[in-house]
Amino acid sequence: MKKIAIAAGLASLAGIAAAQSKVEVFGVIDTNITRLTGTGTSSKLGLATGGANISRLGFRGTEDLGGNLKAGFWLEAGLDSDTGAGKAAGSTGLGFNRRSTVSLLGDLGELRLGRDDSASFLSTLIFDPFLTNGVGGTGAFSILGVPAAGTSTGGAPIQISNALSYLLPASLGGFYGQAQLAFGEHTKAEPNKNQGDYRGLRLGYRQGAFNGALAMGRFYGDSPDNNVSASNLGLSYDLGVVKPMLIWAREKRGALKVTVLQLGATAPLGPGELRASLGHYNTAGSDADWNKVALGYGYNFSKRTQVYGTLAYLKNKSGANRAIGVQGLSATGAAMGGKSSGMELGIRHFF
Amino acid sequence: MKKIAIAAGLASLAGIAAAQSKVEVFGVIDTNITRLTGTGTSSKLGLATGGANISRLGFRGTEDLGGNLKAGFWLEAGLDSDTGAGKAAGSTGLGFNRRSTVSLLGDLGELRLGRDDSASFLSTLIFDPFLTNGVGGTGAFSILGVPAAGTSTGGAPIQISNALSYLLPASLGGFYGQAQLAFGEHTKAEPNKNQGDYRGLRLGYRQGAFNGALAMGRFYGDSPDNNVSASNLGLSYDLGVVKPMLIWAREKRGALKVTVLQLGATAPLGPGELRASLGHYNTAGSDADWNKVALGYGYNFSKRTQVYGTLAYLKNKSGANRAIGVQGLSATGAAMGGKSSGMELGIRHFF
Amino acid sequence: MKKIAIAAGLASLAGIAAAQSKVEVFGVIDTNITRLTGTGTSSKLGLATGGANISRLGFRGTEDLGGNLKAGFWLEAGLDSDTGAGKAAGSTGLGFNRRSTVSLLGDLGELRLGRDDSASFLSTLIFDPFLTNGVGGTGAFSILGVPAAGTSTGGAPIQISNALSYLLPASLGGFYGQAQLAFGEHTKAEPNKNQGDYRGLRLGYRQGAFNGALAMGRFYGDSPDNNVSASNLGLSYDLGVVKPMLIWAREKRGALKVTVLQLGATAPLGPGELRASLGHYNTAGSDADWNKVALGYGYNFSKRTQVYGTLAYLKNKSGANRAIGVQGLSATGAAMGGKSSGMELGIRHFF
Repeated sequence: MKKIAIAAGLASLAGIAAAQSKVEVFGVIDTNITRLTGTGTSSKLGLATGGANISRLGFRGTEDLGGNLKAGFWLEAGLDSDTGAGKAAGSTGLGFNRRSTVSLLGDLGELRLGRDDSASFLSTLIFDPFLTNGVGGTGAFSILGVPAAGTSTGGAPIQISNALSYLLPASLGGFYGQAQLAFGEHTKAEPNKNQGDYRGLRLGYRQGAFNGALAMGRFYGDSPDNNVSASNLGLSYDLGVVKPMLIWAREKRGALKVTVLQLGATAPLGPGELRASLGHYNTAGSDADWNKVALGYGYNFSKRTQVYGTLAYLKNKSGANRAIGVQGLSATGAAMGGKSSGMELGIRHFF
Repeated sequence: MKKIAIAAGLASLAGIAAAQSKVEVFGVIDTNITRLTGTGTSSKLGLATGGANISRLGFRGTEDLGGNLKAGFWLEAGLDSDTGAGKAAGSTGLGFNRRSTVSLLGDLGELRLGRDDSASFLSTLIFDPFLTNGVGGTGAFSILGVPAAGTSTGGAPIQISNALSYLLPASLGGFYGQAQLAFGEHTKAEPNKNQGDYRGLRLGYRQGAFNGALAMGRFYGDSPDNNVSASNLGLSYDLGVVKPMLIWAREKRGALKVTVLQLGATAPLGPGELRASLGHYNTAGSDADWNKVALGYGYNFSKRTQVYGTLAYLKNKSGANRAIGVQGLSATGAAMGGKSSGMELGIRHFF
Repeated sequence: MKKIAIAAGLASLAGIAAAQSKVEVFGVIDTNITRLTGTGTSSKLGLATGGANISRLGFRGTEDLGGNLKAGFWLEAGLDSDTGAGKAAGSTGLGFNRRSTVSLLGDLGELRLGRDDSASFLSTLIFDPFLTNGVGGTGAFSILGVPAAGTSTGGAPIQISNALSYLLPASLGGFYGQAQLAFGEHTKAEPNKNQGDYRGLRLGYRQGAFNGALAMGRFYGDSPDNNVSASNLGLSYDLGVVKPMLIWAREKRGALKVTVLQLGATAPLGPGELRASLGHYNTAGSDADWNKVALGYGYNFSKRTQVYGTLAYLKNKSGANRAIGVQGLSATGAAMGGKSSGMELGIRHFF
C-alpha cells in the first residue's frame, strides 16, 4: 500500500515536474559599487550593474524530437540590476534584447532564427579576461560605438535582430563556428540596397589547452560609406597556473579604421580567479590612440555566487578622449589626451 | 529506513513541486522568413513572427478553493520573436497585452476581471484555418484597423482592457459563450458619454463534428459617429478527411460598413495539416472591395514543434489598396486597385 | 527492483526540482471595480488594480553558501492587472520597479544592493490596515507627491534605486531595522552636491502582541530647498479581537511641512478581516488640511485568494483639494475645500 502511495505520489510529482521542465527560468544578478574618475570634477560614485556578468533574466528549453533532432528556444532579457530597469530597444521595459531564438538542432548542426549575439562579436567576449564587462572589460568590439536601430553611424552591433544563423555541430573534432545572415528589412532602394543587413562568419578550433577563433562581419548602413566591417582573432592557451589570451580586432567605417591588440590572462588563485588585461587601441593615420590596463579578482563563494573587484586605467593620446564606461553609471568624460580610471567591487549571483 | 528516507525525499520534493505548481510558465516562439510583395520596388524579405501562432510568454495557475469553486490567474505577454521586442501599449517592453486576468470559477460559470480577448473577436480566430496569423490569416476582425488607445478611429479592438467578463460553464450540453463589459474610464461628458466603453456578447454551440458561434460587440468612440460595431458568425463541420469552416463578419463605423465572407478548410495530411481559405471583403456602396486566397501546410515534428509554410495572394478592386501584412515585418503597400502577395516558411514551438 | 526504480525516479525528479528550485516565480493579481466620486460631473467608474495588495510578478531565490552564509536575489515587477501594463520608469513595459536586489546574508545581518523599498516608507505600510493600497490606503508617505526621477520637487520616494542597505539579523530579541544609502549618481556640483542621494534609517521592536518602529529618511533634491525629509512612527498591539495601530508621519520640503496622524485597526471577523482607519493630515501654518476615513472587509476563500470591499471618504479644509486616488483608474479631482469618496470591490490572488 505504501509503495503504491509512493508510486502515485511519484507519478503526480513527475507530472508537475514534467510540466515545469519545459521551461527553465534562469538569470544573473550582478550589482556593484563603482567609482569612475575622469578629468576635473567629473568623477562619479554609484551603483552599477554587470561588472562580472551582464544581469539578465531568461527562459529557455529544449525538446527531443527523436532521431537525434531537437527543438529549442531561448529568451533572454538584459536588465540594470541597480535600478531594476529593462533594456528593450528605446525603452526602460524588459525586452529580450540579448536573445530571442527558436532552433532546430541535429547531427548536421543548428539552424537558429531570431535575435542573437552577432557572430563577429563573440570572440571579443570569450578571449577577454573580463568578458567585455565592468570597468575592466575590453573595448575591442563596437569600438566605433553601438549604432542606433536602422542606422550604422556607430560601430558593429553586439546583438542583431532578424538573424538566420547556422552553427556547426559539436562533433567536428574541435572545430566550431557559425554563419549568420540578418535582414535589414528595408525596401531595396538606393543609396544602399542592403541597408540594415548584417553578414557574419566565425570559425574556431579548440583542442586540449588551446582555443582560437577567427571572425568577421559586415553591417550595412544607410549609405555604402556607413557600412561597418569588423574582424577579429582570439587565442588562448591554458597552462594551468595561468591562461594567457589575446585579441586582435579591427573595425572600419569609411575612412575610419581602429585596430585593437589586447593581451590578457586569467589565473586560478585560492577559491577564485585573477584577471588582467593590457590593450592598445590604434586609429589609423591619426593620433586618436589610447591604452587601457585592468586588474581584477573574483572570489567564488560557490559556483553560483562570486564577489569581485576590478581596477582599470585608460590613457588617451592627444587625439582621443575615450573614457571608461560601465552599465548603470553614466560615464564621466575624459579630456582630449586625458585619462580615465575606474574601480568596482560587486556581487555576481547566477540563478 | 530507506522507505522513510524516500518518504522524506518525497515530502521535500512535494514541497518544492507544490511551490512551483502555483505558477505555470508557458509560451510560444514562432519565427519565420517572410516575403511580402506589393507594387513596384516595395517588396520585402525578412524575419517575421507569429506565422502559425502568436509568439508569447505567459504565467498562469489555478487554485482549488473547495466546493467546486476555483480561483485562477493568467498573465500573457505578446512578443516579436524575430527581434525580442515586447508589445506593451506604446512601448517595446514586455507587457501583458494579450491577457491579464483574475477569475473565480464555479458551477455557474466564470467571473473574469482584467484585459482579455474581446468577445466579438474570438470567432474570427477559431473559424479561420490560419487563426488570423501570418500571411494567410483572415482580416475578418478589426477590418477598419486597430484603434489607438482611448480612440475609436480604427476598427474593433482585438483585446480590451478593464473588462468584466462572465463565461458560461462547460456543463451546458454544448452551449458556450460569454458577456463582456469593459470600462472606458472617461468622465461621463459629451459628445460621447460612453467613450472608451466596450460591450460584447458571444454564444456558440459545439456538438460532435459541429461548431458554430454568433458574436457581436460595440466599442464607443470619442463621438457617436466613431462608435464601432462588429458582428460575426462562424461555422465548422469536421468531416474527418476535411474540416470546412466559414466566417461571416461585419464591421461598421459611421457610414462605413465592411462585410467579409470567408470560406476555409483544414485537412489532416501526413503528420500535419493542410490549410486553405478564400475571403471576399465588401465595402458597402463603394468599389473598395478586395479578395484574398491563402494555402498552407504545417508539419508536426511533435505536439509542440511545427514547421509551416504559407502562400497568400490579395487583389484589390479599383477603390481599395489593402496589402498583406504580418507581425514583425512592416507591410509593403499596395496601389489602388493593386495586388499584394506573401509567402512564409517558419518554425512554431510551444513551451 | 521497484525500490531502485523509485530511487532513480526520485533522483531524476530531484534533479529537475533542484534546477527549478533556484528560482521561485511568485506574484499577486489584485483587480477590482472602483468608483471614485469628486465634485460635479467628475465621478468615475472602472477597473483598478492593487486594492488589497499591489499586483506584481516576481522571481526570487536563495543559495546556501555554508557557514551560515547565504546569497539571495529578488526581482519584483509591479503591474496594472486591469490593463496588463507594466510599471517600468517612464514606460508601460515591465521593469523591476518594486525590487531588484542581490544580497549576502549571515549571522551579522544582510547586505543588500539595488533597488528596494526606501527605509522610511515601510512603516507607513506595515501600520496601515489597508497597506497603503486602494481607496482606503493611507497617504502617510510621499504626502508631497512622488518625485520624478532625478528630481525632488515631489515627496519622499517609495522605492529607491542604486541603494546599499544593511539589515539587522533576526536574532536580536525582537529588534529589527535597516540603514540605507542610495546614490544619486550626479557629479558633485552646486547647487546641491548630494543631488539624488537618499539616506534612510529604520529601527523597530516586536515582542508578543507589540510592534513599533521609528524611521527617518532624507532625499536630496536639485537644490537644498528641494531636499525632502520624512520621519514616521508606527505602533500596533494585537489584542486578539482587535489590533489597533497608529501612524504618525511628517514630511518636509523647504517651508512646506505636512504631518499625519492616523488611527487604524484590523479585527478578525469570520473567515476574514475587518479594517478601519481615520487619518488627519495637517499642513503647518496653513488651512491646507484634510481628513480621511476608511472601512473595509476582506473575505478569505483561502490563504491565497481574498474578495474584499472598501469604502473611503476624504474631506478637505478650505485650503486643500486632495482626492482619493487608486492605481489603474485616474483620479477624479476635488475642489478646494471639497470632498472625495471611493468604493471598491475586488479579488486578490497570491501565486
